[in-house]
Amino acid sequence: MIRIGLLGCGRIGQVHARTLKGINIARIVAVADAIPKAAQAMADATGAELRETDAILSADDIDAVVIGTPTITHFAQIEAATQASKAIFCEKPVDMSVDNIRTLMAGIEAAGVPFFTAFNRRFDPNFAALQARLGAGEIGAVELIQITSRDPSPPPIDYIKTSGGLFRDMMIHDFDMARFLMGEEFTTLHAVGSSLVDPEIGEAGDVDTAAVTLTTASGRICLISNSRRAAYGYDQRIEVHGERGMLRAENILETSVESATAEGFKRSPTLHFFLERYEAAYAAEMKAFIAAIAAGETPTPSIRDGLQAQILADAATQSCQTGQPVAL
Amino acid sequence: MIRIGLLGCGRIGQVHARTLKGINIARIVAVADAIPKAAQAMADATGAELRETDAILSADDIDAVVIGTPTITHFAQIEAATQASKAIFCEKPVDMSVDNIRTLMAGIEAAGVPFFTAFNRRFDPNFAALQARLGAGEIGAVELIQITSRDPSPPPIDYIKTSGGLFRDMMIHDFDMARFLMGEEFTTLHAVGSSLVDPEIGEAGDVDTAAVTLTTASGRICLISNSRRAAYGYDQRIEVHGERGMLRAENILETSVESATAEGFKRSPTLHFFLERYEAAYAAEMKAFIAAIAAGETPTPSIRDGLQAQILADAATQSCQTGQPVAL
Amino acid sequence: MIRIGLLGCGRIGQVHARTLKGINIARIVAVADAIPKAAQAMADATGAELRETDAILSADDIDAVVIGTPTITHFAQIEAATQASKAIFCEKPVDMSVDNIRTLMAGIEAAGVPFFTAFNRRFDPNFAALQARLGAGEIGAVELIQITSRDPSPPPIDYIKTSGGLFRDMMIHDFDMARFLMGEEFTTLHAVGSSLVDPEIGEAGDVDTAAVTLTTASGRICLISNSRRAAYGYDQRIEVHGERGMLRAENILETSVESATAEGFKRSPTLHFFLERYEAAYAAEMKAFIAAIAAGETPTPSIRDGLQAQILADAATQSCQTGQPVAL
Amino acid sequence: MIRIGLLGCGRIGQVHARTLKGINIARIVAVADAIPKAAQAMADATGAELRETDAILSADDIDAVVIGTPTITHFAQIEAATQASKAIFCEKPVDMSVDNIRTLMAGIEAAGVPFFTAFNRRFDPNFAALQARLGAGEIGAVELIQITSRDPSPPPIDYIKTSGGLFRDMMIHDFDMARFLMGEEFTTLHAVGSSLVDPEIGEAGDVDTAAVTLTTASGRICLISNSRRAAYGYDQRIEVHGERGMLRAENILETSVESATAEGFKRSPTLHFFLERYEAAYAAEMKAFIAAIAAGETPTPSIRDGLQAQILADAATQSCQTGQPVAL
Repeated sequence: MIRIGLLGCGRIGQVHARTLKGINIARIVAVADAIPKAAQAMADATGAELRETDAILSADDIDAVVIGTPTITHFAQIEAATQASKAIFCEKPVDMSVDNIRTLMAGIEAAGVPFFTAFNRRFDPNFAALQARLGAGEIGAVELIQITSRDPSPPPIDYIKTSGGLFRDMMIHDFDMARFLMGEEFTTLHAVGSSLVDPEIGEAGDVDTAAVTLTTASGRICLISNSRRAAYGYDQRIEVHGERGMLRAENILETSVESATAEGFKRSPTLHFFLERYEAAYAAEMKAFIAAIAAGETPTPSIRDGLQAQILADAATQSCQTGQPVAL
Repeated sequence: MIRIGLLGCGRIGQVHARTLKGINIARIVAVADAIPKAAQAMADATGAELRETDAILSADDIDAVVIGTPTITHFAQIEAATQASKAIFCEKPVDMSVDNIRTLMAGIEAAGVPFFTAFNRRFDPNFAALQARLGAGEIGAVELIQITSRDPSPPPIDYIKTSGGLFRDMMIHDFDMARFLMGEEFTTLHAVGSSLVDPEIGEAGDVDTAAVTLTTASGRICLISNSRRAAYGYDQRIEVHGERGMLRAENILETSVESATAEGFKRSPTLHFFLERYEAAYAAEMKAFIAAIAAGETPTPSIRDGLQAQILADAATQSCQTGQPVAL
Repeated sequence: MIRIGLLGCGRIGQVHARTLKGINIARIVAVADAIPKAAQAMADATGAELRETDAILSADDIDAVVIGTPTITHFAQIEAATQASKAIFCEKPVDMSVDNIRTLMAGIEAAGVPFFTAFNRRFDPNFAALQARLGAGEIGAVELIQITSRDPSPPPIDYIKTSGGLFRDMMIHDFDMARFLMGEEFTTLHAVGSSLVDPEIGEAGDVDTAAVTLTTASGRICLISNSRRAAYGYDQRIEVHGERGMLRAENILETSVESATAEGFKRSPTLHFFLERYEAAYAAEMKAFIAAIAAGETPTPSIRDGLQAQILADAATQSCQTGQPVAL
Repeated sequence: MIRIGLLGCGRIGQVHARTLKGINIARIVAVADAIPKAAQAMADATGAELRETDAILSADDIDAVVIGTPTITHFAQIEAATQASKAIFCEKPVDMSVDNIRTLMAGIEAAGVPFFTAFNRRFDPNFAALQARLGAGEIGAVELIQITSRDPSPPPIDYIKTSGGLFRDMMIHDFDMARFLMGEEFTTLHAVGSSLVDPEIGEAGDVDTAAVTLTTASGRICLISNSRRAAYGYDQRIEVHGERGMLRAENILETSVESATAEGFKRSPTLHFFLERYEAAYAAEMKAFIAAIAAGETPTPSIRDGLQAQILADAATQSCQTGQPVAL
């Protein structure tokens, strides 16, 4: 039995709690949240104990911590969990500072603590199937990857202001996906971005529409485009070109119903809400984490994956501001 | 709180138990199964008491029974539950005999007991959306309905032999769907069928490939085609033509991944397993049943819906054997 | 050089003239039409001589006649052309009377004259590809065929009144397609039909919405559905189920443009006009006819194909009126 | 009647001759080609006179010249045609040198000679429909355009060596399309490219896989990706995102036939051959040219469009070589 301490009882903590409930070999032993009411509700829902965060991080009856707290608190919690030799599941981003992540990584690797960076999209059944088929050589060596990621609508401007910017907040998922699919590190990055969706976003110094080009040493190319707006729902597509063809993952629509009228053939919009779109991915990543630590294996994505994505996000932010490519 | 007695702890009973676990206003109080081991496993999984079927049917602490036992046992269980004024959720078919269903219906209607015939496909989110859009008049009055229903592969021949035949065992779902969508009773039926998939099925006196044409008094038409085999998975499609166009529900594929190679563009097969294909439908039908009885409303589909579908299945069996249309 | 006499210079005659213009080994020598102006326009456009129909049918400098005149005139023209040993390309239907077709067939077969019944849809590149792949065994033996054929809107009521009815005028194409794909003659037929689109059609004694079920001696099944109305354009689909899967031909849309908005994903309506939808088919059938007679081969579809389709159309008309199946 | 002189009787000249044959208000009067046999064949096929190129360019009985000769000869022919006040239809690229195009443009604009740069893809019915719908405001202001253009397989290496490189030879079509759709000139360009398809292409100093990012002054973004290889056929797609949604043009497949087997659902590859894929576009561009000069209107795309596309191609070539963005 893997005994879990759940740090952070907000929206994402609740998702993980639901998944953990269905995993026989795991049990949530204790929960904590800075908001007492949220923590209490989670304790009630899971039957776990309510404890202080520090108490959980050092507890003898906890094997693993699931960190779903605000990013700003990750560093201290990860340090404490590492010292207490807990397995760590941490929401992305690990930290906003690449230096901080390097510091944590050094500690984690020295201590040999299992660490999982929660890039949930790797576990989406469609993207995972695509990656497995790529890996099996179905289309030969990868030549060009195109990732499209568009939110239905922008988050509140206050969120934007503290988000670290589009590249760190939103495109970071795509950077990880690009690495996951390419299987070779990127060596150059070029980013462009602008504020076309909402002028307030531009005034806040951020962009809402952006595109990044990445290349590898062997000349493979990846294009990522992001927007904070998509009228037709949450747009999440991947297209990979290889020697012998293409593999792509299409959007998930609300229903399979199609109408045909004088206007033409009409299918549903895509699923709008990320928790619904990636429901299966959230469940699968937690199962993978628990399975890995139960088997004594190193979970993936690692903290190094978290670091690399953050390095790309920083580089993109810089490239977008300077207009110059960045060598990685 | 709706207190549930679960009769039948097999595959479908387990599906319903899982759904009930997630419904706050319902609780499984007691479970029963002819196979003690199955009953015990269910009791362990749900925390419910293990009781005899009769005891559950007459218990004071049970508000509703969920009947997922073999069809042959339904009659007696429904009679007992009716006498004990329990709300009843019953797997289809209610009974193999139309006369028996009429008898039960008389009792149920006299007693005013809530009764739900578990035609789960009405609750598939896609089919339900299609029906709602039809009802909202999106394509005007219905003119022609085409229902395609093909299993991935035939059931064991022993199952076939006691199944009542394809029309009663398999097409009954499509008969109910046809009624659900048409909104007008059928007045004529013509069926053809043959054994093309497996000669053993023909030798057992059944068909494995069949088509039925139904018409209503106002001239609307419904075509249903069934097969016990579909190499590409579970084929479940509906197409409705009306004055102003068409509404159709397409198949659900295993993944959203598409490949493009020298052979062309290839998408995944459909979901193969009915429990997976209709997972959402099974959950939604139980929620609808619980919600209706909690609200003191009459649940739908009713026992009359169960009766009508059975009448159509009987007529199709007869028409297929005689080659003659049947007036309903 | 195949020297052609073109009888009938209306819409379909013009289509054939255009095709013949592009065939190097054929030349239109003479043209005729009951309407002098139409004939003259065709003579001008093709550079062919204007002659009387009878003169063309008996001319020494004509190898083949292309008959695109009203159905009522076919019988006499085919008889004359047969006696003059011309190759004959005849628009469908050959004749409204099955007896007449039998008489013509006897003469044609006795004389050994090449005869082509212009069921153009066999030459649609998509349907032809489907049939070729079926024939190559891609999905094994055929089990069930589903043909959907819906016109964008009904023809004028005056046309309906002299058309011979939906089964002879419209579904005849589908009967031929069913035979083409099934590769086994049908032995039973059951038809239903009603007037749902336009009450005037019903008052004229015809139906505008219809469905037919056909079976073969070996138990294979074919379903055909027709409507005189489809808001989304000309609906022409075929779906064939076999041992190892399905082959289907989808509709042809006006453009490949798809929009995605808050309403969902929208593609174009289908091509509306039959001459546009089957443009390639009309060209291909004429090329096939010319190629066959140039090579001294028997062209297909034959007059026997024309006869069989007419027999099915008659049977459907009868079944729809009596409500009883017809043994063929 | 527009009297045409056709310069160049190769593959593309033959395409234009076929189109001109079907245009009533135009007539090919004279043809020329450096290869006497090709010129003679064209004269035979069209009934036009065989003349020397210079004679055509200065002839009194010629209103317009259609230039389908090798790029290297365009400059002199355009100069001569301009001096002789002929309307000019010229295959892309107008010239490999931007300076030369500027020189020609000065002459053409001074002389007021109608000039048409044959960017045929603007006339593809699908792309034209997409552009018209964009222009009509269907999705609001454009935010991001994604153009995918992949050839089925690379041209011969000898062609590559004299082609001016992928950006000038292949992507130039996409640069024009980007300008056509964006409706605002681009101000920055960044290109990456590599040789992944065929090492010989890399050894020849060219790339076979490339991606370009363009931005406008108002921050709109365009991504173009090209490859000299696509196993599944000729890949020609456009996707435009705007305020209120997306418009995209999908690929054209060989047939509308789809199979469904144990492997899944499989559709045809795309049309492989560019002359087949863009058959309608080639016809439409010539009709537009003839219609414009017949109406005394200025044809589009203009020589300025030819210039702008060449400027982008040069900039991309430079950016790809230096790794630095180019300000336009």
